[in-house]
Amino acid sequence: MEITRHTFYEELDNIIKAINESSFLAIDGEFTGLDTGESGHPAPFDTPMERYSKIKNGASEFLLVQFGLCAFKADAEKQRYEAKPYSFYVFPKPHDRHSPDRRFLCQSSSIDFLISQGFDFNKLFKEGIPYLTPDQESKARAELERKHEEANKGGNSEGSNSSKKILVPVPEDQKTFLNNLCDKIKEYLEGEDPEPLVIPPCNAFQRKLIYQTVEERFPLVHLETKTGQKKERYMLVNRTKDEEERQKKQMNKQALEKMELDIQVGFSKVIRAIADSGKLVVGHNMFLDVIHAINQFQCPLPDDLEDFKTVVKSVFPRLLDTKLMASTQPFQEYIKYSALDELRLALQSSPFHPAKVVTADGFTRYDDGAGAFHEAGYDAFVTGCCFATMANYLGKLQATPENFTLPSSQLIQPFINKLFLMRIADIPYLNLDGPDLEVSRDHVFHITFPKEWRISDLQSLFQPYGNIQISWLTDTTCYVALYKKENAKIAMKALSQDMGTYHIVSYAFHHRNKNLRWTAASAGTPVSSPITPLGKRKFVQSDGDVPPLKVKRHSLPNESFQPIPEEDESLDHSTGKIDINDTTESNHNISHCSDGHSKEVDPVTEEKEKLFEESDAW
Amino acid sequence: MEITRHTFYEELDNIIKAINESSFLAIDGEFTGLDTGESGHPAPFDTPMERYSKIKNGASEFLLVQFGLCAFKADAEKQRYEAKPYSFYVFPKPHDRHSPDRRFLCQSSSIDFLISQGFDFNKLFKEGIPYLTPDQESKARAELERKHEEANKGGNSEGSNSSKKILVPVPEDQKTFLNNLCDKIKEYLEGEDPEPLVIPPCNAFQRKLIYQTVEERFPLVHLETKTGQKKERYMLVNRTKDEEERQKKQMNKQALEKMELDIQVGFSKVIRAIADSGKLVVGHNMFLDVIHAINQFQCPLPDDLEDFKTVVKSVFPRLLDTKLMASTQPFQEYIKYSALDELRLALQSSPFHPAKVVTADGFTRYDDGAGAFHEAGYDAFVTGCCFATMANYLGKLQATPENFTLPSSQLIQPFINKLFLMRIADIPYLNLDGPDLEVSRDHVFHITFPKEWRISDLQSLFQPYGNIQISWLTDTTCYVALYKKENAKIAMKALSQDMGTYHIVSYAFHHRNKNLRWTAASAGTPVSSPITPLGKRKFVQSDGDVPPLKVKRHSLPNESFQPIPEEDESLDHSTGKIDINDTTESNHNISHCSDGHSKEVDPVTEEKEKLFEESDAW
Repeated sequence: MEITRHTFYEELDNIIKAINESSFLAIDGEFTGLDTGESGHPAPFDTPMERYSKIKNGASEFLLVQFGLCAFKADAEKQRYEAKPYSFYVFPKPHDRHSPDRRFLCQSSSIDFLISQGFDFNKLFKEGIPYLTPDQESKARAELERKHEEANKGGNSEGSNSSKKILVPVPEDQKTFLNNLCDKIKEYLEGEDPEPLVIPPCNAFQRKLIYQTVEERFPLVHLETKTGQKKERYMLVNRTKDEEERQKKQMNKQALEKMELDIQVGFSKVIRAIADSGKLVVGHNMFLDVIHAINQFQCPLPDDLEDFKTVVKSVFPRLLDTKLMASTQPFQEYIKYSALDELRLALQSSPFHPAKVVTADGFTRYDDGAGAFHEAGYDAFVTGCCFATMANYLGKLQATPENFTLPSSQLIQPFINKLFLMRIADIPYLNLDGPDLEVSRDHVFHITFPKEWRISDLQSLFQPYGNIQISWLTDTTCYVALYKKENAKIAMKALSQDMGTYHIVSYAFHHRNKNLRWTAASAGTPVSSPITPLGKRKFVQSDGDVPPLKVKRHSLPNESFQPIPEEDESLDHSTGKIDINDTTESNHNISHCSDGHSKEVDPVTEEKEKLFEESDAW
Repeated sequence: MEITRHTFYEELDNIIKAINESSFLAIDGEFTGLDTGESGHPAPFDTPMERYSKIKNGASEFLLVQFGLCAFKADAEKQRYEAKPYSFYVFPKPHDRHSPDRRFLCQSSSIDFLISQGFDFNKLFKEGIPYLTPDQESKARAELERKHEEANKGGNSEGSNSSKKILVPVPEDQKTFLNNLCDKIKEYLEGEDPEPLVIPPCNAFQRKLIYQTVEERFPLVHLETKTGQKKERYMLVNRTKDEEERQKKQMNKQALEKMELDIQVGFSKVIRAIADSGKLVVGHNMFLDVIHAINQFQCPLPDDLEDFKTVVKSVFPRLLDTKLMASTQPFQEYIKYSALDELRLALQSSPFHPAKVVTADGFTRYDDGAGAFHEAGYDAFVTGCCFATMANYLGKLQATPENFTLPSSQLIQPFINKLFLMRIADIPYLNLDGPDLEVSRDHVFHITFPKEWRISDLQSLFQPYGNIQISWLTDTTCYVALYKKENAKIAMKALSQDMGTYHIVSYAFHHRNKNLRWTAASAGTPVSSPITPLGKRKFVQSDGDVPPLKVKRHSLPNESFQPIPEEDESLDHSTGKIDINDTTESNHNISHCSDGHSKEVDPVTEEKEKLFEESDAW
């Protein structure tokens, strides 16, 4: 069911009911962009904290514009779920001229992707549901109360502050205009018309003059400025019999303003209902969805990862990421590609049995199975179905097999509160329930080398120590990981003795000294290009996520680190990735800089491409 | 006439013809936002360089999304113009996965404004015309040529580079898939089907395997990867009889790629045609339009103002700003409000006679007079009509009156190449033809004061020296200008002797020492609020643009410095301004910070409001 600002309040009670009655919830988000191109691209050897920082940056700049929520209610008897999928358009349309006027970033490729999937931006901007974080709401409420108190002390609330009234001298050329208007108001007051008198749009200065003139000459008239559909501002003259009635009108108006503020809280009410329900919330590759939801509807993202985990738990106390689940045994061996659509397909055949899911009355939109991938409600629906199927599969593996495994089952406990981390080979998830995995990266080295170096140079360098995985950082630096971890010590020893044009340090050393930069000169031989700080130039990264044979390839600085829509390369329906077929094309790229200028970066030529074998265990 | 990517190349020749045959051109732009909220708001005592820097910042971040162009062709005999108005949707949709992937900023209030005016964002994102600057174009062209050369050396252009071919070992689970595919290709090659064989979408790794397998087993087959409407990537198998035919196909493909690049140059061709034509280009309050057009279609905006002027002259050698014209004698006395719609209305009555303008065949969209303000083509059309009317009026004032004054007339020469500067009281325009006006600001002071100060405190302070104009900078600093300039010296002398809680310096001194900040402590008495640097906190500005009685009012940090759509306050149809009627409401505002977080700023209370009289000469 599609929900806009026009249907939101009509449906809100039903939505909250659906949340509270559900056995579990599935969510999904659509965004105006993924990667600012400025904060460093997610890379295979990120620590969880580094990854969080990188993603946080984009989440603070881009907008979540559609939120998918699907409530799944178990029918234990029929061994099936009833699903209620919702797609909410959300947009921070400024309520009035005192509302926050949010600036947000868009990424052309993401916009292009969404529009190609049929996303309706006109509907978003016209009918998107507003939202306020709890903090924004309470501040706005306090402000409104302060304003009302002041108005109730000071007479007509809309004119200037009566205690410090400064009258604008009426310019000659406005006198006729004002006199004519006063005549009209007089006539209106003497008449019986129950409707307010409309003063057609005029400019701000004239409206100011009208306020002060009317307040002076017609103390019992109640004036209001309204904004029309085309943003034109017109005024309404309301007749009041006496001071008491005038005050009553003012009270009504203030009550209305309070209701309007309540409306502004908007979609945040749904997030709060989810939080209050304590239900299991399922998502597919949901780190971005969670981080955006927190930032938009709860609070600004904290700098510290542990603080972030605390906030997440306060909003989504129980999370499950289906991409992590699918990438873990016993599923991993049957699911080659874990992008949502491929996961759905894989779960339709042996050894799996698709969970039985029916859509509730009034939610038939996705019933024909045609699907509407990347409509947030549909993606949430599919995610929930995949989860149900995988949960049932776990149940069937039991000593006493069960056909219908509920989300409350202990079997899914190992997957709770772990967010999948894309392309971090050795730390598959962010652990919301405690400290993250600590892994040895003793077989990983940081190399600084001349700009001219290609993959083949790195390969030759490491040739005695077996296959390598390269993770490009800039065009003169990368991480190199040894496939044969046991060779780490001898490699380091040999290579650090004979440094010619390159410089090698251990991953650990580099990580400790991130802010110190090795210049090319310090690597022995001067090279043509200066070493630039991380995050400022070209980021080239290899990729460790295509089972069973991992294909290392680079992506370019102005590209998404994830193909749109935030899925892995096996889906590859994105503009944000280099197709490995295109390796003979070198790439002309212009990256976006913070000053908004485009900056040319050197093409990454195909020689930097590297394919190598890698065990599944890596 | 509305032009999208679908009709652009069909119409391009006509458009260029219309440009070249015109007597003058009018332009207008629509943007995704106006004010980043970060770079400091335009203020009354900006120098031209300061103003340029502030506007440049926004222009580099926001996008021009609709360009209006109206070609006016004089018919001297009939003493009228024939108009051809065009609205171009322009959007940097990435052409392929190697194209620049532009990030751009949107301002919620601007988006909301455009959508309320009927702007079609779906059309923009789906059918917007692409564009490349000359520099982007030549780089892309060089890159394409390099790629073609390489491909022509190395055989099949799409596989991996043949000289350095690294074959991916085929994993077990892909062998059946590949064998089946090869069988199909074999069957296809033996058949007669003239259409290429379609390989349904598969993932990037599989496509890589297909490339290498097909290249090895079917050397005469030509493979292509295509991107479908939903971004899915599928492949085409083309039969070729022999190597010669294969090469011919490759040549065709390369020719097509060159044409595609040409298509990417897109809307920039129109800008280049305007530049080449050397025609007079008219705009209304056109600084933003010009700066955006340069940035998007010509080159990144230079830091230096004089360099910017040089660039402008290279693209628009002859400009005229109708807002400047309307604000100058002999027009100023008849035109109270110079926003475009109000200007249009003013020019319809005495002493003016609307210029005769007919729309050309096929351009009847605006004929019913209903108008479509803020559709760029219509605004350009109205701007051109206003210009024609004002030019004719100048002709009629001549000793020998003329009814029809052409843009080539010497009468309009005084208005050429001067861009209107909003709200700079004493420097009305940016002079593209030479140095800017140098004005004395000896009667202007910079004051630092406690946060608690209100307008009344400043008024009392300056009370002995007559009326003042206040231009708020932060909540503890402002410029104060004396209406009675002759009192400047005695005021400075007296006030700088008796500094209590405030600190006063001359405008000139402050301007020279902008980077040095006075702390409140240095002003004598410690106050509660620290002094924050310009541009980082609240900007409150008074406003010097409402004739005949100037109304000073403040605007808030998260507001536009100009009401959308970039017009002056007399139009006031914007969400970006505080209505002076709303002065009893204090304002809850959350401003946008560079880290994307919202930041609360103190409400500006109405006591800071100040109304004062001001002569027209100011």
